[in-house]
Amino acid sequence: MNSKINIDEKYSKFTKHWSPRIIAEMNDYQFKLAKIKGEFVWHSHKDTDETFIVLEGQMTLKFRDGDVTLNKNELYVVPKGVEHKPYAKEECKILVIEPKGVINTGNSGGKLTINEEMWV
Amino acid sequence: MNSKINIDEKYSKFTKHWSPRIIAEMNDYQFKLAKIKGEFVWHSHKDTDETFIVLEGQMTLKFRDGDVTLNKNELYVVPKGVEHKPYAKEECKILVIEPKGVINTGNSGGKLTINEEMWV
Repeated sequence: MNSKINIDEKYSKFTKHWSPRIIAEMNDYQFKLAKIKGEFVWHSHKDTDETFIVLEGQMTLKFRDGDVTLNKNELYVVPKGVEHKPYAKEECKILVIEPKGVINTGNSGGKLTINEEMWV
Repeated sequence: MNSKINIDEKYSKFTKHWSPRIIAEMNDYQFKLAKIKGEFVWHSHKDTDETFIVLEGQMTLKFRDGDVTLNKNELYVVPKGVEHKPYAKEECKILVIEPKGVINTGNSGGKLTINEEMWV
């Protein structure tokens, strides 16, 4: 039998920003928690959509044609191939759902890239 | 540009129990909100896992070998093929994530079966 996953408890186990932690898998998809603060990098994912749900705080998804600001209990699906840049003025807790193997910085690379799977 | 989806607002737009409403699609997966109360039917989904997240209240997933009770901000992935029976003593609000086309009653059918896609 699988174990249930308590999201708040999982959040208490890490502090690093922009460092998503996997909490569950469903088929070939993963659920990842992240704490974010500040600006991420412009990037896109050419092969997949990516879903963000804000669980605490506020984040902005910057797009080339405008911004979308998400508050608690708001969800946004970034379509595949669409450039976006996450931003949070204050620390924000998010849940990201996407296929296994998606790299956080997409096509852009750089020092914020996380190549290993980190579970929490 | 996609629209953001406010989960609380979406919940305010329907009242029926055991009647999941689609709020978003990511690739070939869907996000569905449901209000549940009472007992559902035993069923399984032979081709896919199914994810439940409790957003308000408490639900129990009954399995043949034991129960799992989920409170707010708890997540559970029911593996494909595993029989389960959702139950909630009081109204509970859940988010279900699963592939497009999954039927709520899985292999069991019956009067609680919903064959149409209902968006909210």
